[in-house]
Amino acid sequence: MRYPDAVEELTALLKQLPGVGRRGAERLAFALLEWERADLAEAGKLIAALPDLVGQCPECGCISDAGKRCAVCARPDRDPGLICVVETTQQLYAIEASATYRGRYHVLGGRLSPLTGETGEGLNIDALLARAKSGAVREIIMATSPDVEGRATAAYLAGLMRDMPIKITRPALGLPAGANLSYADGPTIAAALGGRVSMEDNSHGR
Amino acid sequence: MRYPDAVEELTALLKQLPGVGRRGAERLAFALLEWERADLAEAGKLIAALPDLVGQCPECGCISDAGKRCAVCARPDRDPGLICVVETTQQLYAIEASATYRGRYHVLGGRLSPLTGETGEGLNIDALLARAKSGAVREIIMATSPDVEGRATAAYLAGLMRDMPIKITRPALGLPAGANLSYADGPTIAAALGGRVSMEDNSHGR
Repeated sequence: MRYPDAVEELTALLKQLPGVGRRGAERLAFALLEWERADLAEAGKLIAALPDLVGQCPECGCISDAGKRCAVCARPDRDPGLICVVETTQQLYAIEASATYRGRYHVLGGRLSPLTGETGEGLNIDALLARAKSGAVREIIMATSPDVEGRATAAYLAGLMRDMPIKITRPALGLPAGANLSYADGPTIAAALGGRVSMEDNSHGR
Repeated sequence: MRYPDAVEELTALLKQLPGVGRRGAERLAFALLEWERADLAEAGKLIAALPDLVGQCPECGCISDAGKRCAVCARPDRDPGLICVVETTQQLYAIEASATYRGRYHVLGGRLSPLTGETGEGLNIDALLARAKSGAVREIIMATSPDVEGRATAAYLAGLMRDMPIKITRPALGLPAGANLSYADGPTIAAALGGRVSMEDNSHGR
């Protein structure tokens, strides 16, 4: 039996969200039907207005309040000489949550993926090169994902900046802190053993 | 680090949905940020308009296109003499999905729950009594949930209709079809054994 038209439409929309299947979309739709009229009006207005309320930071490409710099770029105490390149805003927030990084970021908005036709045209690369050429940057950390496409993206960007007087680095690969070695996959163990450090030097691991 | 204001608001709203926690709400919010402006406008409009688009069937209380009877009550081939009482619209759709029931429904919109202060005032009970008194109903199936509150609700409703010439029934308790007996809980096994039927009579189980 069909649901009422509006419920069918809502279910179809909700099903487009990640991790939401047909049953999950129905559950969410029925939950929304229980909401107060005022709450639904507020939610609907907010969702429709998202493109006008949320923009991109003109410096780093992170999401921000529309027309404003993001919370990191707006802070004067962040080191402008150090830029961490990430694929997505979520990765930026993950690094911020670790509360260990004091530099700035650059959000690419994706990564190179020749197989799916992503050749870098939609990515936030020109702005990165402009920042690199400005003379204020001494190091760029390529924190793209440590998989094939992420590594290819990092290598491509490093190639573009080959002739600039900038140190290009990447985060260390190794065992996740606190994880049991028996659950680590082969490439991770290989990277951890290959990149082993003297226990005297390993002060950051303590 | 805080997200942009609109993203914080959206995350707070999404967190109110069932089964959506802080991390899940963030993931949904970021997914919505990727949607096209037109899709967000459509979704926002639909959500805000839900209370105007979706109403209750005036006969049975099921959700329906606003101002109209529900898909079951609108069908002339459904037996008006048989009413199945359920707590929620979702339960109605679950029975419909089984494609075995040809009667009509009555959706209570909840159940009696003295411990949480639900004393039946918000429930769709008066309309059920009116239907029962109409003379057109010969049997009412109390398909409320087979737990303490659902059984109490069924018993209460049956009491209200004690003096009417209507047969009051409830669905059989027993083993779920196709389930392994070793996973059934004690009360279910007790109900299945207590309600055992002769194998000659058990034609509906084949």
